[in-house]
Amino acid sequence: MEDVLNDLIEWLRIPSVSADPNAQGEVRRAAEFTATLFEKAGLEQVRLIDGEGNPLVYGEWLHAPGKPTLLCYGHYDVQPAEPFELWRTPPFEPTVIGDNLYARGAADDKGLAIILIRAVQQFLGAGRPLPVNVKFLFEGEEESGGDHVSRYVRENAGALACDAALICDTEMFAPELPTICVGLRGIVYAELTVETGAVDLHSGVYGGGVPNAIEAAARIVAALKDKDGRINIVGFDEGLIPPTPEEHESWARLPFDENEYRRTEARVFELHGEPEFGLFERLWARPTIEIHGIAGGFTGEGAKTVIPCAALVKLSCRLGPGQDSVQVGKMLSDAVKAVAPPGVRSSLKILHGAPASVVDPSNPYVRHAALAMTDIFKAKTVFTRSGGSIPIVGLFEEVLGVPSVMTGFGLPDDNLHAPNEKVYLPNVYRGIDAIARYFERLGAL
Amino acid sequence: MEDVLNDLIEWLRIPSVSADPNAQGEVRRAAEFTATLFEKAGLEQVRLIDGEGNPLVYGEWLHAPGKPTLLCYGHYDVQPAEPFELWRTPPFEPTVIGDNLYARGAADDKGLAIILIRAVQQFLGAGRPLPVNVKFLFEGEEESGGDHVSRYVRENAGALACDAALICDTEMFAPELPTICVGLRGIVYAELTVETGAVDLHSGVYGGGVPNAIEAAARIVAALKDKDGRINIVGFDEGLIPPTPEEHESWARLPFDENEYRRTEARVFELHGEPEFGLFERLWARPTIEIHGIAGGFTGEGAKTVIPCAALVKLSCRLGPGQDSVQVGKMLSDAVKAVAPPGVRSSLKILHGAPASVVDPSNPYVRHAALAMTDIFKAKTVFTRSGGSIPIVGLFEEVLGVPSVMTGFGLPDDNLHAPNEKVYLPNVYRGIDAIARYFERLGAL
Repeated sequence: MEDVLNDLIEWLRIPSVSADPNAQGEVRRAAEFTATLFEKAGLEQVRLIDGEGNPLVYGEWLHAPGKPTLLCYGHYDVQPAEPFELWRTPPFEPTVIGDNLYARGAADDKGLAIILIRAVQQFLGAGRPLPVNVKFLFEGEEESGGDHVSRYVRENAGALACDAALICDTEMFAPELPTICVGLRGIVYAELTVETGAVDLHSGVYGGGVPNAIEAAARIVAALKDKDGRINIVGFDEGLIPPTPEEHESWARLPFDENEYRRTEARVFELHGEPEFGLFERLWARPTIEIHGIAGGFTGEGAKTVIPCAALVKLSCRLGPGQDSVQVGKMLSDAVKAVAPPGVRSSLKILHGAPASVVDPSNPYVRHAALAMTDIFKAKTVFTRSGGSIPIVGLFEEVLGVPSVMTGFGLPDDNLHAPNEKVYLPNVYRGIDAIARYFERLGAL
Repeated sequence: MEDVLNDLIEWLRIPSVSADPNAQGEVRRAAEFTATLFEKAGLEQVRLIDGEGNPLVYGEWLHAPGKPTLLCYGHYDVQPAEPFELWRTPPFEPTVIGDNLYARGAADDKGLAIILIRAVQQFLGAGRPLPVNVKFLFEGEEESGGDHVSRYVRENAGALACDAALICDTEMFAPELPTICVGLRGIVYAELTVETGAVDLHSGVYGGGVPNAIEAAARIVAALKDKDGRINIVGFDEGLIPPTPEEHESWARLPFDENEYRRTEARVFELHGEPEFGLFERLWARPTIEIHGIAGGFTGEGAKTVIPCAALVKLSCRLGPGQDSVQVGKMLSDAVKAVAPPGVRSSLKILHGAPASVVDPSNPYVRHAALAMTDIFKAKTVFTRSGGSIPIVGLFEEVLGVPSVMTGFGLPDDNLHAPNEKVYLPNVYRGIDAIARYFERLGAL
């Protein structure tokens, strides 16, 4: 356990922020460290795969003839850590407090991805053969929407042939409740620029006579949804496949207190969203539009009376199963143009997109993962969805024709993508045992 | 002329950004340099007046018994220079290109305020007595809404007794058209903070279930005005005194091409504002709400999928004559509360406020200024208003009981409060002659 923790801390110390073009050196260092972990686990053919984008890291162990082959996926890149001032401990100086380890990437994904690596090491490191064959493929652009991994998978489908993909990047529904995620939303990420003229203007001299780019951006943002959270774009949810009645029933049985969730997990003053849908459906299966950032004009100390001529908005849509990400991007662009006030030039740039994915819980690779987790956690594994997006899952289904088994040992309060991200260390250790057990179960099939 | 230019350049080199708490040393250095200019002009009793805020600079010449006394006002502080990357020449390295001098503060106000100083120097520097008495009072918080000068004026009304105030901080309506400004709008400057919860959240995990602080801020901004620019606050323009029919007629005679103005001065794609009012009334006499800046969430390179829990908006209202700035601040606060979506905590902090001012053009101090300018510029002086705010004008009226003569030799394309601010140097030199002529005219009354 101490060795796992030391490896994880060393990995987390590397600020592999893939969205930051200045962090390319650190990203590469993280890839190299990932390769070191693969080698230490006993994987073979370990190598960095260079290409357009950040390196992929590959390793394999294929000495279990006749046994299933799992493609183990993880990512070594992390979200930006801003705003730094809200971190209680430095994001790239991993800090253990009680049973938790705090760092950017602690739960997303280094702290969970290491579970897959160390489950292999439990066998090979002790001189025991693995009960299954594994191919490890880790990437470094998951948080920035890069497509090196998807190009590589498309071009090397034969070499990556497998029976199922195994991904460790999701969370448990509740602390002692082993969870497999069988549905993910898709995403369309976009950047909106709004311009009203050539220069910023003095609000005394020009105020009342000219448009204001921030006001225009605000009007566009406000027009995309109604005040209750319904998306104001006709046809936006075309093709959307709603959850089955069985899924609704199983969700209704999950241990859940909406007010407790609001207070301790979401930590918002009030929950929000389409009133005609329940919270799980809103979070896991409904499309959304969220504003991630906005910038324009003067926001320093004091009072500057400027009418800004430009504003920037970062936003994304989450997609439910059945929605086409290209079509959604187009509808969003059209909607922005339609609601932009007169005299305003707006332009929407789509940064990346991916469709939603759903997996059948009765698939044996999913079922045995659930049973393995039940063995270790001593509780019945539940099937949930995640509102997040793991584009690789759709890719594995499309290109390799395999289902993805989305295990996850993160907790709901891990502060993913936010300051003070952490991982609950006992889950890392139990996760390693659960994945090792999963290998044994599959090997015995 | 060369000596004027050298003095001005040296003054402009000092980055006296009063809104920047880190620039206090530079602000003081600018005050000291102002005192040097006063002394060089022949003013007496020159001194810095310290107090809560940036120093005032005082000087006087009171050896014209029986003649009028003018209180000459200017400010040595400047607006912040951000965004630096849009400046073609460094904002604090004054650069002469053709007839223009480029620098932050070139027109607002150092390049115009120096006219008052050098008009005095034309007499005293040549060993001739001034035809009038003058008291110079320059401040260093005009751009940041500080109230050192207003406290000082209130507490020293006796020492500042005068017949009229003379202010050189406005612009000419057109390049060869001497202009006196007889009306200013008031202002209420505010900072809005919007909060939805304790932490930023992952838009995959929480999107669809929680409010978004930027979206909430956008809804508030969009709700304050309608899409045509009408303010959506009932009672907002209570007490507003519209321009007189005579004023409307004289404005209609000003040389003006609205499309040319749009294209070359405002440089916007379209003009904008309440369609039931003409452009001059919208710019000079109507109340406004403008958004100066907005910040929230992630706006760096790449894609961060965060639901921000906080957003900041800087905004201000311009006020027409008759509107009460305290009352307007209260109405704005109430309006923000009323339109804030549920689950959102919003708070509006008023940074400063001042009422509008109008001056009667038939007042002899205004009339003789107009005639003096006509003498030098060889064109009939026009009376306009400015949409900007010079809070000191209202203060001089209230506390000292005197009208303010608002001359100005800036041009409409001087880029006040924006990158590439400049002053047209021939106007600085003619301005000095015009103010000297004004002194002579008043001395001959």
